[in-house]
Amino acid sequence: MSSNSFGKLFTLTTFGESHGEAIGGIIDGCPAGLELNFEAIQQELNRRKPGQSNIVTQRKEADEVHFLSGISEGKTTGTSIGFQIKNTHQRTKDYHHLENSFRPSHADYTYQQKYGHRDYQGGGRSSARETANWIVAGAIAKQLISFIKINAFTSSVGKIYIDKPYQDLDFSTTDNNSVRCPDEKIASKMIAEIESIKKQGDTIGGTVTCVVKNVPIGLGEPIFNKLQAQLANAMLSLNAVKGFEYGSGFCGTEMKGSEHNDLFNADGTTKTNLSGGIQGGISNGMDIYFRVAFKPVATIMQTQESINKAGEIVELEGKGRHDPCVVPRAVPIVEALTAMVLADFYLLNKIARI
Amino acid sequence: MSSNSFGKLFTLTTFGESHGEAIGGIIDGCPAGLELNFEAIQQELNRRKPGQSNIVTQRKEADEVHFLSGISEGKTTGTSIGFQIKNTHQRTKDYHHLENSFRPSHADYTYQQKYGHRDYQGGGRSSARETANWIVAGAIAKQLISFIKINAFTSSVGKIYIDKPYQDLDFSTTDNNSVRCPDEKIASKMIAEIESIKKQGDTIGGTVTCVVKNVPIGLGEPIFNKLQAQLANAMLSLNAVKGFEYGSGFCGTEMKGSEHNDLFNADGTTKTNLSGGIQGGISNGMDIYFRVAFKPVATIMQTQESINKAGEIVELEGKGRHDPCVVPRAVPIVEALTAMVLADFYLLNKIARI
Amino acid sequence: MSSNSFGKLFTLTTFGESHGEAIGGIIDGCPAGLELNFEAIQQELNRRKPGQSNIVTQRKEADEVHFLSGISEGKTTGTSIGFQIKNTHQRTKDYHHLENSFRPSHADYTYQQKYGHRDYQGGGRSSARETANWIVAGAIAKQLISFIKINAFTSSVGKIYIDKPYQDLDFSTTDNNSVRCPDEKIASKMIAEIESIKKQGDTIGGTVTCVVKNVPIGLGEPIFNKLQAQLANAMLSLNAVKGFEYGSGFCGTEMKGSEHNDLFNADGTTKTNLSGGIQGGISNGMDIYFRVAFKPVATIMQTQESINKAGEIVELEGKGRHDPCVVPRAVPIVEALTAMVLADFYLLNKIARI
Amino acid sequence: MSSNSFGKLFTLTTFGESHGEAIGGIIDGCPAGLELNFEAIQQELNRRKPGQSNIVTQRKEADEVHFLSGISEGKTTGTSIGFQIKNTHQRTKDYHHLENSFRPSHADYTYQQKYGHRDYQGGGRSSARETANWIVAGAIAKQLISFIKINAFTSSVGKIYIDKPYQDLDFSTTDNNSVRCPDEKIASKMIAEIESIKKQGDTIGGTVTCVVKNVPIGLGEPIFNKLQAQLANAMLSLNAVKGFEYGSGFCGTEMKGSEHNDLFNADGTTKTNLSGGIQGGISNGMDIYFRVAFKPVATIMQTQESINKAGEIVELEGKGRHDPCVVPRAVPIVEALTAMVLADFYLLNKIARI
Repeated sequence: MSSNSFGKLFTLTTFGESHGEAIGGIIDGCPAGLELNFEAIQQELNRRKPGQSNIVTQRKEADEVHFLSGISEGKTTGTSIGFQIKNTHQRTKDYHHLENSFRPSHADYTYQQKYGHRDYQGGGRSSARETANWIVAGAIAKQLISFIKINAFTSSVGKIYIDKPYQDLDFSTTDNNSVRCPDEKIASKMIAEIESIKKQGDTIGGTVTCVVKNVPIGLGEPIFNKLQAQLANAMLSLNAVKGFEYGSGFCGTEMKGSEHNDLFNADGTTKTNLSGGIQGGISNGMDIYFRVAFKPVATIMQTQESINKAGEIVELEGKGRHDPCVVPRAVPIVEALTAMVLADFYLLNKIARI
Repeated sequence: MSSNSFGKLFTLTTFGESHGEAIGGIIDGCPAGLELNFEAIQQELNRRKPGQSNIVTQRKEADEVHFLSGISEGKTTGTSIGFQIKNTHQRTKDYHHLENSFRPSHADYTYQQKYGHRDYQGGGRSSARETANWIVAGAIAKQLISFIKINAFTSSVGKIYIDKPYQDLDFSTTDNNSVRCPDEKIASKMIAEIESIKKQGDTIGGTVTCVVKNVPIGLGEPIFNKLQAQLANAMLSLNAVKGFEYGSGFCGTEMKGSEHNDLFNADGTTKTNLSGGIQGGISNGMDIYFRVAFKPVATIMQTQESINKAGEIVELEGKGRHDPCVVPRAVPIVEALTAMVLADFYLLNKIARI
Repeated sequence: MSSNSFGKLFTLTTFGESHGEAIGGIIDGCPAGLELNFEAIQQELNRRKPGQSNIVTQRKEADEVHFLSGISEGKTTGTSIGFQIKNTHQRTKDYHHLENSFRPSHADYTYQQKYGHRDYQGGGRSSARETANWIVAGAIAKQLISFIKINAFTSSVGKIYIDKPYQDLDFSTTDNNSVRCPDEKIASKMIAEIESIKKQGDTIGGTVTCVVKNVPIGLGEPIFNKLQAQLANAMLSLNAVKGFEYGSGFCGTEMKGSEHNDLFNADGTTKTNLSGGIQGGISNGMDIYFRVAFKPVATIMQTQESINKAGEIVELEGKGRHDPCVVPRAVPIVEALTAMVLADFYLLNKIARI
Repeated sequence: MSSNSFGKLFTLTTFGESHGEAIGGIIDGCPAGLELNFEAIQQELNRRKPGQSNIVTQRKEADEVHFLSGISEGKTTGTSIGFQIKNTHQRTKDYHHLENSFRPSHADYTYQQKYGHRDYQGGGRSSARETANWIVAGAIAKQLISFIKINAFTSSVGKIYIDKPYQDLDFSTTDNNSVRCPDEKIASKMIAEIESIKKQGDTIGGTVTCVVKNVPIGLGEPIFNKLQAQLANAMLSLNAVKGFEYGSGFCGTEMKGSEHNDLFNADGTTKTNLSGGIQGGISNGMDIYFRVAFKPVATIMQTQESINKAGEIVELEGKGRHDPCVVPRAVPIVEALTAMVLADFYLLNKIARI
C-alpha cells in the first residue's frame, strides 16, 4: 500500500495540494453495477464544505466533484473511478507571511525536514482540504454498503459533553444545528462556546462519536487487519486527531471482567455491548461505536512566537480563514472513513469461506 | 497486505494456534548485515512469558524462538527470516467444556459465524499466544533501530494510576516489579489490587504508556501512512485493547489552541510537547508518547451464563490458567509493535529524498 | 496492489476510458527533490502519439500532460503527483456499429461477461490510450534513474527481422524513421511491408527489443520480485503482447550449459552475456536485454463475421482509425514500463543493507 | 507485496535456504471450509522431488510437508496455514570448494554484491529447493479451484520438440515417463538426449507447455493485473526461466490480423484460439495455454574457469548432485504457480460485481 492509498480491495489513492489547481483521487476495486446517487455524494461534500455557518471557516469552496471515469449510465463499470475537485477561491496572499516561518503545531517543520521543502501555502498536501477526496470515496462506499447505517455526531466541544447514552439520541437531527450535535440543548451550549472562543481569536477541541448499525456479523480479519485496528488507522489519519476508543474504551480499563463481559442472549446478540460490536477483530452484529478525539486547531488568530528557516525567533501574526472548532466539519469525514473501512471488509468477507 | 502480515517494508507474517504444535512467522525486508543479539531477543520473549510471577497466569511456556533461515554467522543475510516457537504444556482438557459453548466477550462466536468453524482450544488463532511472534519481530526491529529508545510501562491498573509526568520516572526500574510500573509505590498498590481481584476470580483492566526517545525527524508518511495512524493500527491489533491516544490525547480535546500549540525553540525543538512528537503524521524529533487502554480479560474464574451452538442458555464454569490483569505482560508487546512500526518508517524514510 | 496500480515503492495508479473526457494517474513514492524536465516528458508522449506518420493511425490526439500536484518550482515535493491528459478528437460515431456486437480478439466479450457491461466506444478502459499514462510515469522514472540508459526499438515486423546483434546498432538513429528501427535498410523494408499490409486493410505483428545499459549491480529481489519477473509482468500488461524473453530466451533452451554459461572476467563482468544481465533475479551490471512479442492488432479494415449480445451471427465492418502495425508506437511504451520497473527496484535496493 | 510473498488474496510467503534445517511458508487468504486431500499435496511434492529417475539429480530429499496451523479436522479454518519441509541429506562438503569462488551464471556474484554476503552452500536462498514451498501452496490452490484442469508437460528438450498440437496429446500419460512428455516416442528421444548430455557432464535446456482447461470466463483484472501478466510474473520467478509466451506467442508476431483473429461461434466460444484463452487480460473461457523457456542448468560436471572474491582467476571443478535437465522436474512447479495465479484471480473475481 502506497502512502497516498487507503484500503485493500476498495481502495482510494489521492493527490492534491490545498492551493493547487485541483485535488482528486482514484477509487479502485468498487464492484461493477453499483447505481450511484450523485446528489448524495455532493450532499456529503456540502456537509464538509467550509463556510456553512458562522462557527466554521468563512473560506468558500465550491467543492464540486467531477467524475472522469469508471461510471457509465449512472452505474459503476468495475474500472477505476477517477475524480477531481477544483480548488477555487484560494487566496495565496493570506499565506505569504508564512513563507519563511514555521507555524507552531503545524506540519510545516516536519515536511521541511523530511523532504527538504514545503508548500507554505495553506498547508499544501497537509491541508485538511484532502479530506474532500475522502468524502467522495466514503460517499460511494456508503452506497455500496447501504444496508449499514453510519451516524457520526459531535459529542463534545471543549468541556461541554453530551451526557446521554447514544441510544437516547435521534441521529436524524444531527444536521439540524451548525455544530452537528443531536442534542439540541447541548448543541446550543457548544455553539455559544465556539462563538466565544472565536471572539478570542482562539480555537477549541472536541470529540466525534460514531455509531454504526446493521453491521453484518463477520466483518474484519483476525490478526493484523482487525476491524477496530483499521478504524483506528483511518481515524488517526485525520489531521488533529489525538485519540480513538471503541466500546468501553478508556473507561473500560477501570472495570472488572465480571462487569465488562457482554453476556449472550439466546439469539447470539448480547445483553450489554461494552465490546462495541467487535470481538477478536470481527464484527458480532451489535452496534459498533467509537469516539475520536480532536485537538484544537493550531492556527489561531493571535500573534504567536515562532522560528524561521534560519532558526531565528519571529512573531507570527494570526491571519487567514480558519475554523475555531474543526469538530462539526469532521463529522461527515469520520463517517466517510468508516464507510471506506467497512466497504473494504465487506468485500474481503465475501471470500472468507468457500 | 494480507491479514496475517504487518508492515510495508519491514514485514512480519505469522501463523499458529495456541494449542497447535508451534507458532511462528516470517520476517521479510530486514536489511542484510544486521548483527543480531539473540540473547536480547530471548530476553524480550521471557518478559512476555506467562508464569513469571503470581499476578500473571501460571501456564508455563518455554517460549524459545528457533530461527530457521535468513541468518548466517550471527548476521541477517537479507533473505526472509523464518522462525518458530514450539507450543509446550498445552492442557487441552482445560478447554473441553468450551467445545459447544461461546465464552462471553471472546472471539468464539465471531470466528464461528465468520468461518463456520472455530478452534475452541485456548482461543486458537485468536489467542494472545500469537503475540510471542510479534515479540520476535519487534526484538529484531529494536536492534535495527537501536539508536531509538522505546520504553513502555504499566501506567494504570483499574483506578490506580501513576500520578507523575513520565519525565519523572526512571524506566530502568520498570522491570523491577511484577506489574512493570516504574513508580515503586504505585506498583505496590497495583500488585495488591491485582491480587485482590485474583482472589475474587475476577480480572481488571489498565493502561500501558509508551515513551519513545531519540526518534529521528522525518519518520512517518503524510497522508494514509501517518506515524500515529500506524501506531494506532498496531496497538488496536492487540487483543483486549480498547483505545489509543498520543500526545495530549483525549485531554487535548478540552484545550484551546493557544494553550495546546507547542512553541518552537530556536533549534527546532519545542518548549512543550502536547503534539506527542508527531506533526502532520511525521516525527518532529521530540519524544513520542502514547497510551493504550486494555479492558479486563474476558476469561474469569467465576461461573457465567452463556449460550451454546444450539442457542441454548448454558452455565460456563471459570476454568483454565489466565491472567487476572493482562497489562504487565502487554508492556513488552507494546514495545515490540512500536519497534516494528518505527523500523518500517525508518526504512521508508531512506527513500524520501533523492 | 490494486489492479489499476503498478509498482511497490514508485507506484502508478491510473484511470480513464479512451472516449471519456480525460485519462490520468497518480504517481506515488517518487522521492522529493527530483528536478523534472517537462519537455522530455512531453517528448516521450509525442513519441507514443498517433498520427505521426502514414504507417500509424491517423487519429489526432494532443496528448498534453497536465500536472496537478506533487511538483513545486520544477521539482518533485515528495507528495503524490496527480496528472491528467485530456481526450480530444474522440469520434464516437466511429464506434456506434459496435454497440451490440463483439469484435473478434478484442476485450469486448470478456469485459461484458466479467462486469455485466462494457464500454464499446473505442475500447473503453481496455484501449491502448491508457498507455499514455504509463508514458508519463515512465518519463519521470527515467529522470529518477537517468544514469541508466534504456533503448527499445522495433526488431521485427512480420517476417522482417534485424539480422545484427544489438551491439552493432546505433540507438541514436532509432527515431530517424517512422518504424523506429535503428537499421536503416531493414527499416525501409519494414515500412514497405506495413504500407502493403495497410492497403490490404490488414494488420501485422512484430517484436520490440529493449537494451538497458549502465544498470547498477543489485537491482531486483531474489524470490517473488525478480527483476526479470517484473519486466515480464510489465510487458505482458501491454495490450497485444504475447510473449517475453530475456537474454538467450527461447533460443537458450536448445543450448548446453557449457555453451550457455557466462564466464567471468577478473573484474566481475562476463565474457558473454547470455544471462541478459540478470542472475538470480538480480542485475549483475551487464546489459539487460529482452524481446517482446506483439500480435497483429485485432481491428482490421475488412469485414469480419462476429456475434452480437443476442448470440446472433453479424457482419462487422472494418471502420475507425487504427494502426496497421502497433510495434513502432509500442517502442516508447516498452521503455516507459522498463523505467518504472527499474526505478522501483532502484529505490528498493537502497534498503537492502544496513 | 514483500519480495518473499506471492499473490494478492491467496498469498504465499516463504523462507528457507537449501542447506538450512528447513524451508517453509505461510499461506494466507485460503477460504475456510476447504477439505484438503493431503495425499494429493504430498503427491505433487513427490513429482518435484529429486532422485526420481536417472535423468535427474540423485540427491535424496524426503520432502515431507508438515502443516502447523490453519487446518482443523482436515479442513482449512480460514486462518493462515503454516507449513514446513525439513531439509535432509544436505552434504555441505559438496560445496566447500565454492566458499570463495563465484560459479558462472549462478546467483553467487549478484547476492554477494547486493547483500555483502552470500550463502555458498547449495545456493542458499537462490536454490531451486524453494520451489518445494511453491508446490505446497500450488497443491492447495489446485484443490480450491478443482474444477479447473491444469496440465503442464515437457514440450522440448534441446532441439527435440513435440511436433503435435496439444489437442492430440493425452495428458494422463505425462507422468508415465521420466521426462514428463505425453508423447511416448518423443519422450524416448528426450531421455536419450539427456542421458547423452549427462555423460558429457553437461546440461541442456528445454520448454514446458501448460494447458489450462475449464477456466471460468472473467478471471484476470484489466490493467496492471492481467491474467497473462501474472502468469508471466509467476513463470519468470522460476530459476532458469528465460521466456514466456501464451497463445500464438512469438509466432503470432509474423501473422496478419485477418489470420490471427479468433472468430466467434454463436455461443461465445471461438473457432480458433490464437488468443490463448485470454482477451484484455481476462479469461474468455477457451483453453489457456502457454510455453515456458528453461535455459540449461548452470552447474555442469566440467571444470570451468571463474573468479574468486579477490578477483583472481580460479578453476572450478564440477561437483555435487545436479540435474542434467531441469525441465521434467519443473513440470509440477509450472502447474503449482499456475494454480496459485488462478486461485488468486478466482477469489478476486468473486467481488467484480455487486
